[in-house]
Amino acid sequence: MTIIVKKFGGTSVSSVQKLKKIASNLVEEARNNNLLIVLSAMGNSTDKLEALSEKICKAPNPRDYDMLLSSGEQVSVSLLSIILNNMGIDSVSFTGWQAGIQTDSSHMSARITKINVKNIQSEFRKKNVVIVAGFQGIDSKNNITTLGRGGSDTTAVALAAALKAKECQIYTDVDGVYTTDPRVFDKARKLDILTYEEMLEMSGLGSKVLQLRSVEFASKYSVPLRVLHAHNAGTGTLIKKEENKMEGALISGIAFTKDEAEIMIKGVKDQPGVAGKILGPIGDAKIEVDMIVQNVGSDGLADFTFTVSRNTLKKALQVIEKNRKSMMYQSVISKSNIVKVSIVGVGMRSHAGIASKMFKCLAKNKVNIRMISTSEIKISVVIDQKNLEIAVKALHNEFKLDKK
Amino acid sequence: MTIIVKKFGGTSVSSVQKLKKIASNLVEEARNNNLLIVLSAMGNSTDKLEALSEKICKAPNPRDYDMLLSSGEQVSVSLLSIILNNMGIDSVSFTGWQAGIQTDSSHMSARITKINVKNIQSEFRKKNVVIVAGFQGIDSKNNITTLGRGGSDTTAVALAAALKAKECQIYTDVDGVYTTDPRVFDKARKLDILTYEEMLEMSGLGSKVLQLRSVEFASKYSVPLRVLHAHNAGTGTLIKKEENKMEGALISGIAFTKDEAEIMIKGVKDQPGVAGKILGPIGDAKIEVDMIVQNVGSDGLADFTFTVSRNTLKKALQVIEKNRKSMMYQSVISKSNIVKVSIVGVGMRSHAGIASKMFKCLAKNKVNIRMISTSEIKISVVIDQKNLEIAVKALHNEFKLDKK
Repeated sequence: MTIIVKKFGGTSVSSVQKLKKIASNLVEEARNNNLLIVLSAMGNSTDKLEALSEKICKAPNPRDYDMLLSSGEQVSVSLLSIILNNMGIDSVSFTGWQAGIQTDSSHMSARITKINVKNIQSEFRKKNVVIVAGFQGIDSKNNITTLGRGGSDTTAVALAAALKAKECQIYTDVDGVYTTDPRVFDKARKLDILTYEEMLEMSGLGSKVLQLRSVEFASKYSVPLRVLHAHNAGTGTLIKKEENKMEGALISGIAFTKDEAEIMIKGVKDQPGVAGKILGPIGDAKIEVDMIVQNVGSDGLADFTFTVSRNTLKKALQVIEKNRKSMMYQSVISKSNIVKVSIVGVGMRSHAGIASKMFKCLAKNKVNIRMISTSEIKISVVIDQKNLEIAVKALHNEFKLDKK
Repeated sequence: MTIIVKKFGGTSVSSVQKLKKIASNLVEEARNNNLLIVLSAMGNSTDKLEALSEKICKAPNPRDYDMLLSSGEQVSVSLLSIILNNMGIDSVSFTGWQAGIQTDSSHMSARITKINVKNIQSEFRKKNVVIVAGFQGIDSKNNITTLGRGGSDTTAVALAAALKAKECQIYTDVDGVYTTDPRVFDKARKLDILTYEEMLEMSGLGSKVLQLRSVEFASKYSVPLRVLHAHNAGTGTLIKKEENKMEGALISGIAFTKDEAEIMIKGVKDQPGVAGKILGPIGDAKIEVDMIVQNVGSDGLADFTFTVSRNTLKKALQVIEKNRKSMMYQSVISKSNIVKVSIVGVGMRSHAGIASKMFKCLAKNKVNIRMISTSEIKISVVIDQKNLEIAVKALHNEFKLDKK
């Protein structure tokens, strides 16, 4: 029988009513497939457990904190199994350790090291639906661990890889991955198919449908990943490895992030090591830097410009002021009302001229480009925030993303 | 170091605040002893989990139901461990399976078959306080099981036996075991010490402080058991095996049950097998019978009287009516406003005349005795409900229970 892994997040399992809906949607598929269901904790139950811990202290000891949090998924999986069994569909619920999910000992952000699928396969042989608690595992000393944010997606993908499942289906509150955010441009179109790399660039850049880590995992083990709506019908978006026939589309989507801020350090010496002198203290302060541009002037001095997340701007400026001596600059200019817009697509690998097409389009629409950065399958520009909608719409039309 | 096991029930761990109070009371003892703490789930959290399951069906499949319920204790133990670690007292929380508690596969009422104390002992060597989830274990196929009602007491006693602990302390909402119910007679006195057998008779008869099963367990493995108040200071009541020096007291306490009902079947044939013919169908209907008396008349006919729990009276009478033919009786009389009063004490083994002292006392106080039953360390009488207080007070005074 075909093995299919399905993962449902907290919102789609927030009540017994919703769990019943999920269960009745599984009936048909359970007849002809081996189904493995991965669940998050119900609705805000993890938040409630966190709130209990916060009544004690801000930094709970990680081992017992994982023990606390992991109880949430135990509730959702056992309830779904009670529902399925009550409907006459044989099923069994597993905690992370019962499902054979072994991790390292990094509590609160553990990594899966090995999956022993013996128990699951034995249940599949009995034609049972297997329901596994997401987000959790066990380390080599039998301590319960959790995988950190988005951990249930990772659980699902890792199990799909270990079981050589046909597909790993991630049920969310959206119909799939769109060419751009439909709230910004109503001509945004749902994509039927996408490569892992494109999805990584898309989700990293703001289309937050899937956790980056689970996409990386899926890519590493070539697990076909499908994003679907938890309660609406539809085929969602399939994310898989690149194939020849996929070359048709130049650009798959337009991603953007709104929470950017730009810092320009003017008049630094144009000599080796200057970037390190500036970015060293910034990194030490745990501030993440995104785009970096250096312009060399004719006077032997350079302007060094980079972007940071908007909520770290103030801290970054303090670090720069504090390190004025070692950084040796003339002045600092910062700007927070900027955004980053990116076009993403594996097609640009084999097609020249995409970048100039993008820049011409933006120029035609009077959108000034402040910074540019490119990778193999993505071109990003930093522009003024007020131009976000104009830029997204213009590029969407330019690359004909509303048409298949 | 001395090993002490302490068990706290749901009411005493119903909030983070109460858990903090428990934690601060442990500080001193944790320095000089190896402490093992067994916890129930917080307050009504088990009820809440049951309510979720009831939204699905009345008879959930037992395996997943145990999975559901066992999550409750996982929350309380991890929170207490977070509190202790935050206070600088090294501790570790364990689920049932992490603590090595193995059971049979009778879900919802599993019996402990073996305890592998390796993990606990290893934590003791590191001087950690060990906190174990009560009420749960794991079967030979790695399914999570629960021990049924009062299971946390059983967990505590079983761990105390396996670890050869000095004492198993059960924290409750009473100061200890009393000579009788203080709500019925205000001269009731807390007992300092009691034998297992006395406690079994006392708790079986209505002084519901400890679960029968845990007392039996403690008796079997000679684990000294102490009942204490969770938040008030005091030494509670120590329950242990009989020793010579304990012979002083004739009677330890007066127990009673109010929920009794009496059924008299008149005019049955006085011949072998009649008791079985009557009690067979009653037992088949899962009705528990307590006291049984048979009076032989001069006409070859007998009256067969027995007591049942008051809430099963109606059902019992229906069974008797339905089996009129096979039971072959003349008439049935039932009475529900009766109570059972018992005096309990190992002292009566070596002292004659206790029974007649009891009967004389009741007669002097005009309390009519309807039925009598005796065991080695207990004499029970059935009397009219209206005489309950008179009887308890009179017997308490007669045997001087208010004095040590």
